[in-house]
This record gives sequence, C-alpha cells and structure tokens, in this order.
Amino acid sequence: MNGKAVRVGLIQMSCSTNPEENTEKAVARLREAARSGAQVVCLQELYRSQYFCRDEHPDLFDLAETVPGPSTEAFSTIAAENRIVIIVPIFEKRARGLYHNSAVVIDADGATLGIYRKMHIPDDPLFFEKFYFTPGDLGFRNFDTRYGRIATLICWDQWYPEGARVAALGGADIVFYPTAIGWHPAEKEQYGAAQRDAWQTIQRAHAIANGVFVAAVNRVGYEGPPYTGGQEKAGLEFWGTSFICDPFGQVMAQASTADEEILIAECDPAKAEEIRRNWPFLRDRRIDAYAPILQRWID
Amino acid sequence: MNGKAVRVGLIQMSCSTNPEENTEKAVARLREAARSGAQVVCLQELYRSQYFCRDEHPDLFDLAETVPGPSTEAFSTIAAENRIVIIVPIFEKRARGLYHNSAVVIDADGATLGIYRKMHIPDDPLFFEKFYFTPGDLGFRNFDTRYGRIATLICWDQWYPEGARVAALGGADIVFYPTAIGWHPAEKEQYGAAQRDAWQTIQRAHAIANGVFVAAVNRVGYEGPPYTGGQEKAGLEFWGTSFICDPFGQVMAQASTADEEILIAECDPAKAEEIRRNWPFLRDRRIDAYAPILQRWID
Repeated sequence: MNGKAVRVGLIQMSCSTNPEENTEKAVARLREAARSGAQVVCLQELYRSQYFCRDEHPDLFDLAETVPGPSTEAFSTIAAENRIVIIVPIFEKRARGLYHNSAVVIDADGATLGIYRKMHIPDDPLFFEKFYFTPGDLGFRNFDTRYGRIATLICWDQWYPEGARVAALGGADIVFYPTAIGWHPAEKEQYGAAQRDAWQTIQRAHAIANGVFVAAVNRVGYEGPPYTGGQEKAGLEFWGTSFICDPFGQVMAQASTADEEILIAECDPAKAEEIRRNWPFLRDRRIDAYAPILQRWID
Repeated sequence: MNGKAVRVGLIQMSCSTNPEENTEKAVARLREAARSGAQVVCLQELYRSQYFCRDEHPDLFDLAETVPGPSTEAFSTIAAENRIVIIVPIFEKRARGLYHNSAVVIDADGATLGIYRKMHIPDDPLFFEKFYFTPGDLGFRNFDTRYGRIATLICWDQWYPEGARVAALGGADIVFYPTAIGWHPAEKEQYGAAQRDAWQTIQRAHAIANGVFVAAVNRVGYEGPPYTGGQEKAGLEFWGTSFICDPFGQVMAQASTADEEILIAECDPAKAEEIRRNWPFLRDRRIDAYAPILQRWID
C-alpha cells in the first residue's frame, strides 16, 4: 500500500449460462463501481458462467478461456478507461487438457499484472472441482497495483491459514477471496447458518492473524438445471454475504444473502499500521518451530 | 480421542496475591468439576498468582515454582482421587535465571505426562512477559491422556494459526488455551468489544481450520495494585469469556465476562469425524507450497 487509503469494490451478482451476458453485466457493474469511487474491484469466482462444477461433463471445458482471451480483452479496456484495478476470476485454459481456476489481475492502465491459480481445489458433492481444475503451480502471489500491493486467493483457499499467511508475509495489505459458495437446499435449514458463519469467521481470522484487510466476494442466486443433458441434480443456493473486514477482523461492509450488490469500503493503511503496532503478532512468530506445517500429518 | 465423548471442564476464577489461597480455590473447583462429570479440566494461565506481568520486578521471580513442585504435588493427588486429567498452567522455574510460562499435563492417575512451554511470548504495556519468560523450546506437543489426545497452548499462542495447526497435525482432538487477557480500563470503552471478539474469532477459526475442539479458559476480576512497592499503574480487567467450541467453530458453552464459573461441555469425536468428512480441509493442503511460512518476512 502506497500510504493512501484504497477504495475496494466487490461485485456480487447472479449469473446466467450465457458467458457474454455475464461479461456485459460485470462490465456495467464495474463502471458503476468506478463511478462510486472504487479503485480496486474484484469479481466473483468464475464470474463468466454459472457454477458449472455442480456437474461433471467434458463439454463444459468449452467454457474455459485463455489468457489473453475474451475476459482480459473486455476488462483491460474497462480498467484503463476507468483507472481501476480489476481482479478477474476465470476458468483458464492453459493447454489442451490442462485447466485452472484462476484470477487475472489487471492494473489501472489496462496491463495484465499476472495470474493467480487456485492452489487448493475442493471436491465435494455438487462442487466437483477436481474434475476440471489442476491445482495451481504459481504459489501464493502478491501483485503491485497502482493503488497498492494486494493478493488474491480463490474460494476453497479461504479455509487454509497458510495461504493468507504467505500472502501477508509477501507484503499484501489486502487479500481478496473471489468465491462461489452456497447451500445445498437439503442442508440449508439444519446447517446453513453454521456454514455461513464458519466461512466468514475463518476469513476474519486471516485478517486478524495477519493484520491485513480481507475482501471476500461471493455470487448470489439459485443455480439449478444442469448445463448439459445429464441427470438433473439438486441445485445450489449461493449465499452472497460478500464482505470487507479490517485488519482486526471487524466487518466494515457486508452484502445480503440474496441480492446483487456493489460493496465498497475504504481500506486505510494507517489503520493496518495502528493495529499491527498494538497487536504485534508478526514480531513473535516462532519460525524455528513451524517446520511440521510442511508435513501432511505427523504420524 | 479413543472414540468416546470427553467431558471438558474449564475453571474460570479470580486470583489473589496469595499462591496457597489460589491453589486451594483451584483444588475446590476441580473437585466440583469432577463431581459434575468433567474428565479433562484446564485451569487458567498462571493460575497460582495474580497476573504479575503487569509489573517488571525481579522480586516477582519468587512466584515461580519447579516441576515437580507445589502445583504438581497438589494436583497429582486431586487428579488421581477424582480420575481426572488436569492441565496446570504455572510460572516454571527451570534453573536460576531461566523461567518459562508453562502448562503441566497431569493424567487421571496423577502421573505427570509432560510440560508445554509457551512458545509465543508477548510484550505490551501491562503484559511485560518478555521480562519473565524465555520462549518455549519444546515445540507444539500432544499429550496422550486417559481420555484422549490433547494439546495445550497458552494465551498469546492463540493468535498464531501455526501453533494450532501443528497441534492438530499431531493428532490432538482438543486444543486448550489457558489464558490471561483483559482490558486496559482506558481502552475498554472504545476497543473492548472488538478485542474480545477478535480473541474469540481467531480461536474459533483454529477449530474450523483444523477440525478440532477448542477450549479457552481466561481469568476474571480486576487486578490493580502492583505486587511490589513499585509505581502504581493502571490495572487490568480480565474479561473471562472462557468458551468451548466444536470443530466447526460453533460455541457450545461460554462463560460470562465477570463471574467465576465452571464451564463444562462434551466433546464427541463422532462430531469431529462428521465435520472432517464433510469439510475435508486436511485432504487438500498444499504442503509443497507452504515453505515461505518458515520465513520471517518475504523481503
């Protein structure tokens, strides 16, 4: 962070099965966010489609795009025109048979700063991501944007303190989590509140542990019918709840569970400085004793 | 955990400046906890004294004790008599001029299973711990007790995801955090709620990230006058709020901010099993990419 406060924007929206439609919607929302003063804006995970991983079907690889490709082309222009940094989460085709769940960071002049490739890939009923995505091989990265140093991780990464820690140790002042998480309709009543609470709690904890701002953006809407002619399955109700919290985990702005929203909050490095002085966790880390973290299990 | 549910007990109490008095009170409360069915009981950090680290004075090293010593002697008997495991946090004198902030784990037959020595040592106004305690050199340990495998960390450790992670990778099913944390009276109104919330949030997040039960026990009461003839300083108001949460971060039992209480909750390994199956975070850790965690900072 270059010392000035950064206005962060998150675009929480629903998606159709039409990629061009989703891109057009995102473009319109980005312009609106820029008009509201946002400087670094993040779209939700796989913004360009519905969350197709609720099915496993080879045809769905058609949804992938290259970098550069349609998304970088569209948003590079928008970024430059509006002088905003944009984090664009895409289904990345890297080669024939090699795909990632990625986020492209576009600087405020329209230049592509780099890519983050989702490191932790889930695979659970209706979240069949291991079928589509090879785990990232670029590590946890920082990006020096016009408005400050940021990191982006993606969705399932948010359950791993290690990712946020490495991002923070690299100097990121804001950590973004584009996300696609929702309720199984059958589980919502019994477990829904606890799931959403755990999801927010662990991300707020990353802010606290690391003295960074955290900005998580999730989609909304029910996505039901399969993309392909496959068997009909229960759909997912995405729970929105996009939020931005300060480096002590206090939520500064939070969206609803069901509405499309543009969420904006100011992330002031002076606040991070103050919190890290008063709660100096980085000072006392026992790096001599953390090696077991590199093990799968201590048998 | 040996497959059976474990009844965890936490003793939240206030302390006087008289060590024998504090030990007697703790003994009485442990008996009461055992009568209520508790099987693994944890006392608060430095249970045997007031939180003397609000002063820096060489005379206060007189409060330290050896292992074995008065605390292990007292609680070994109580453990055996009541068939309970006791976690006893003490000011440990290891050698002349070498002291630790430690926790002794006593098994249900009265045998000392081992010691944990606080790894992360704070030092902030009224929490002058670096004057007294050498950082632990035993690492993050597990203890196989009669009622299951547990780990104990201490207070400031609770702000570090690494400690909880190593404890969990070692197989602990319950992680204890004996604690002494309170409000500066001058800060309470403005920051008090956020501080207590951050404190609980990050510990709940350790439960979520690792699929373990977390049990934190803090003292209550205002501790004002200095132990020694030194300059009068503002005191600390310890905020209690001892709690036990499940492996998804849901609080199962929570004490008040001001009263002495015995908190008991059942920690069932079946619940941990269910949560780890449905949210299988351990499956997907990227141990190939976590090495930067062993660095102080990525310059």
